[in-house]
Amino acid sequence: MGIDPGLSRCGYGLVMRRESGGRLQAGAAGVIETEPGRPLPERLQALQIELRSLLGEFRPDVVVVERVFFQVNVRTAMSVGQASGLALAEAAAAGCEVAQYTPNEVKQALVGYGGATKEQVQRMVEQVLLMEPLEGPPDVFDALALAVCHLTTVPFQRAVSAALRAAAERPARLSVVRSER
Amino acid sequence: MGIDPGLSRCGYGLVMRRESGGRLQAGAAGVIETEPGRPLPERLQALQIELRSLLGEFRPDVVVVERVFFQVNVRTAMSVGQASGLALAEAAAAGCEVAQYTPNEVKQALVGYGGATKEQVQRMVEQVLLMEPLEGPPDVFDALALAVCHLTTVPFQRAVSAALRAAAERPARLSVVRSER
Repeated sequence: MGIDPGLSRCGYGLVMRRESGGRLQAGAAGVIETEPGRPLPERLQALQIELRSLLGEFRPDVVVVERVFFQVNVRTAMSVGQASGLALAEAAAAGCEVAQYTPNEVKQALVGYGGATKEQVQRMVEQVLLMEPLEGPPDVFDALALAVCHLTTVPFQRAVSAALRAAAERPARLSVVRSER
Repeated sequence: MGIDPGLSRCGYGLVMRRESGGRLQAGAAGVIETEPGRPLPERLQALQIELRSLLGEFRPDVVVVERVFFQVNVRTAMSVGQASGLALAEAAAAGCEVAQYTPNEVKQALVGYGGATKEQVQRMVEQVLLMEPLEGPPDVFDALALAVCHLTTVPFQRAVSAALRAAAERPARLSVVRSER
């Protein structure tokens, strides 16, 4: 379950792989919205309740939360930090494994380079999950992208680690083939 | 109950006024610490559990949380934001009134000007609460200072509002006294 933390809009998206090696499929996805006119503590509490309820309903194995940096947008930085704190604490409380990726890591994993646009990420999410092009707030796609990033990055990282371990145990012997000509 | 949010150290301090117009007294005060070596979601969850337990134990009428800005210290900004989000949500969930003040507002209320040093704030906290000079992490004093700030600021603000309302209802009549000489 990917979570794109935010106070006004917090995206979430469930992605699963039904069988080992099978393709990725989107489950539920949506946005939790809190009313900008309400006091901050009430909005954070409302977000906390919704997140807890989603985690209880979907029981994801892994919760993937965007890792945010504060230089990006000072105006919304505070509320993004507060929302991400709630998401991380609730995920841990629900007993989920937690992973975090920066926006650049997500773009790198999905589109191949960190400078990809939001539209490129959205198209890749639709392609990987075989979804119809959807109208929706970008937070939903960002959440699905986080989940896809984790599910595609982790097997690759494990394969690399396994290869490195194997290489360390059994040093490669390069047989140099000399050309006869 | 004042809360100085932080992930490594989160200060809390209970201040009460036993009778209307009576002096302020410190109740419990301390720091919640989370282990820097543990994963972030676990640390946030641990902080959440401790905050919830303190709020349940002390049942404060008002929770006063420092309002932080991110320009101050980029390195710790993220975790301070995350911790403050938890504190605000837990306070709202516990049914407490929530107030927030900036560090400058606290200094202004306690020492009289926003540029006061941490030591000056600490001395004022000790004086107002008739405490023995204490050795302790600054987070404890910051938390107590927040509570004192609220308890001294709010009656003053109410008095000003009441005076302004009264003035609006009954326009002041200035009697101009002319000098006979």
